Amino acid sequence: MSTLLIDVPSAEAATAVAFWSAALGVRPLTEPDEEQFTSLPDAVPGLTTAIQAVDDAPRYHVDFETDDLDAETQRLIGLGAVELSRWLDCRTLQVPGGHLICVIPVHSDPNEFIAQARVWP
Amino acid sequence: MSTLLIDVPSAEAATAVAFWSAALGVRPLTEPDEEQFTSLPDAVPGLTTAIQAVDDAPRYHVDFETDDLDAETQRLIGLGAVELSRWLDCRTLQVPGGHLICVIPVHSDPNEFIAQARVWP
Repeated sequence: MSTLLIDVPSAEAATAVAFWSAALGVRPLTEPDEEQFTSLPDAVPGLTTAIQAVDDAPRYHVDFETDDLDAETQRLIGLGAVELSRWLDCRTLQVPGGHLICVIPVHSDPNEFIAQARVWP
Repeated sequence: MSTLLIDVPSAEAATAVAFWSAALGVRPLTEPDEEQFTSLPDAVPGLTTAIQAVDDAPRYHVDFETDDLDAETQRLIGLGAVELSRWLDCRTLQVPGGHLICVIPVHSDPNEFIAQARVWP
């Protein structure tokens, strides 16, 4: 589990960025090629935390980072998750209990990914 | 920000615990005096992660841990949050953008809290 996303309606994204960066005492960072995301570096050590502007109601979701999208998606489906949609390389799953997660390719520093990742047989 | 809560309808709590513990490869832990919570130790280093059985729709929320509930609640209200309710020592706030957070007393190891906490003037 690599990432906590704070999904916020686009119209309120700037307000949410101002709140969360002040509340957590971190400087927000926007990537030029991923304008819907504003990351909150070091909000939690070891967990990427970001605000995402969405055309939907406010919610949180978490990402599972993997070096094998198909295998990880199938593993989670085997545990009862249901794949809802795909967007670029991201797979959105609804998991038992009703929560949304995304399965995403490696975004972390590759060495950190190797150090932190769990290996499945 | 100390805690990620996976709030799940009570009827599906056992199913959710089975999924999340297998998905993250961790052993779930129930505290005898807090039966609605099942923690997922070491799911993310440095972030307490737990499943909470609730009488509500599935959702995630995050907790802000503090050694001064009143001061932290007032600080967040000053940044635009609105206090919705109180339950024991926990204050539930809706923050700009629409998300729910809880302000809670220190639950972490006190030395870790001191090492990680941000200090506000």
